[in-house]
Amino acid sequence: MHLTEECFTLDGIPGIRWTPPDVDDTAPVILLGHPGDLDRMAPRLRGRAQRAAADGFASATLELPGAGARPPLERVEAARADLRRAVAEGRPVDDDIVDRLVLPLVDAAVPEWSALLDHLGIDGGAGYSGGFLAIGVRLALTDPRIAAVGLFAGSFVPHAILDEARRVETPAHVLLQWDDEGNDRGRSLELFDALGSAQKTLQANLGGHTGVPAFAGEDAARFFARHLGAARTDVSG
Amino acid sequence: MHLTEECFTLDGIPGIRWTPPDVDDTAPVILLGHPGDLDRMAPRLRGRAQRAAADGFASATLELPGAGARPPLERVEAARADLRRAVAEGRPVDDDIVDRLVLPLVDAAVPEWSALLDHLGIDGGAGYSGGFLAIGVRLALTDPRIAAVGLFAGSFVPHAILDEARRVETPAHVLLQWDDEGNDRGRSLELFDALGSAQKTLQANLGGHTGVPAFAGEDAARFFARHLGAARTDVSG
Repeated sequence: MHLTEECFTLDGIPGIRWTPPDVDDTAPVILLGHPGDLDRMAPRLRGRAQRAAADGFASATLELPGAGARPPLERVEAARADLRRAVAEGRPVDDDIVDRLVLPLVDAAVPEWSALLDHLGIDGGAGYSGGFLAIGVRLALTDPRIAAVGLFAGSFVPHAILDEARRVETPAHVLLQWDDEGNDRGRSLELFDALGSAQKTLQANLGGHTGVPAFAGEDAARFFARHLGAARTDVSG
Repeated sequence: MHLTEECFTLDGIPGIRWTPPDVDDTAPVILLGHPGDLDRMAPRLRGRAQRAAADGFASATLELPGAGARPPLERVEAARADLRRAVAEGRPVDDDIVDRLVLPLVDAAVPEWSALLDHLGIDGGAGYSGGFLAIGVRLALTDPRIAAVGLFAGSFVPHAILDEARRVETPAHVLLQWDDEGNDRGRSLELFDALGSAQKTLQANLGGHTGVPAFAGEDAARFFARHLGAARTDVSG
C-alpha cells in the first residue's frame, strides 16, 4: 500500500505524518511513540505506519524533546550520563536517576503530542502506540482524545508514572519482551497491574527488545482496530 | 458451521470428538482440556470445538480420571477435602495438598490422552488447549505428537510440573486472567517463565476466571493456526 509521507515542523519540532490512500482527514490517527532521533527511527516508524494503514489508520509522530536536531535538555543529559556511569560500574539504576531522566521528557513531550493532535484537527478517537510508555500513560491521562494506548514495555518507569497509571481509564495493550535485558520485567508487570483501564491486555513474548514476533504486531493492530473502530481494509497483515 | 459430534468410550473412558465438514481424518486435532465432568463441560467444550473448526481443526476430549461417571480416585478426593478445609479455615493451600490433588490426576490422565491420539490415528501436529495446564505440560513433554499447547492459567501448579515445564520445547500460548481469584498469579508467571519453549506467549487480560474476552479466544486460535498449519477457512471468527 502506498502511503503519503509528509514531513512538517510544528512550532519548530520536526514531525512526520503518514496517510493511507482513500482515507480522509477524519480517519483515526495513531501517534507513534519512539525513543528519540526521528532520522534514525524513520524506517521502523514507516513500517509501523504501514501496518496501521492496513487498518485504515493514519499515523503521525514528533521528534522527542532534546533528541535528533532539537536542542539538548541539559538536565536529561546529566541524568543520562549518571545512568551510563551506574550501568558501567554495575550499580543498580536508582529511582532518582530514572526520575531525572524520564520525567522532564514526559513533562515537555506530552503537551507537544497534544498540540500535534490539534495540528492534525483530531477531535477524538486517536491512539498512542510505542515504546516511550511514560509518555503514553501521561497522554492517556491528560488528553481525552486518546481512546487506546499500546504500550511497549522496555523503558524506565518512574514511580510517579505508576501512580498516574492508576488513574488511566483508557483501554490499554501492553507488549512485553520477556527477556529484554534493558527492561525491568517486575516493574513492567507492576505497571500493567497499576493501569486503571477496565480493558487491558498484557502480551509477553519470548525474546529481547527487538525480537517482537510479527504476530504480536498483528495482535496489537487488532487491539487498535477494536478500539478506534476504523473499517479494516486488510486482515491478512 | 455444523460439526459432527461423536460420543465414544475408549477403554471405558467417555470421550467426545468434533469434526468440521469437509475435513478428512488427517486434519490436525486439538485436545480440549477441562476440569472434569464432561456432561457439565460439554456446552463450553462444544463452543471451543466450533472455534477450532473455523480454522479447519477437529477437536476431541476425554473425561478426567475420577470425574463424572468414572470411579472416584480416593487419594485425590482426600486431597480435595483437605483443600476445601484449608480454604474454609482461611489457611494457605500448601504444596503437599497441591501435589496430592494434581499429580495423581496428571499421572493417570496423560497416558489416556496419548491413547486418545492413538485412537484418533494422529501421527503428529496435534494441539492441547485448556485449563488443566499440568496435563498440558506433561503431555507436551512426553508426547511428541503435541505440536502446540494453549494453557489456561488458573489451576494449582505443583513444583514438579514447574520443573517439567523447563524441559518443554513445544510452542506455548499461556492465557492468564489477571484478577482470577482462584489463580495464583505469581505461580502462573513462574510457569510461563519456566517453559523451555523457544516460542512462548503470555496473554493476560483483566477479569476473573470466566471473563476471558472474545478477542483472547481469537488470539489463542491464531496461535494454533500458526503452529498446527491447517488451512484456515475463516478468519472473521
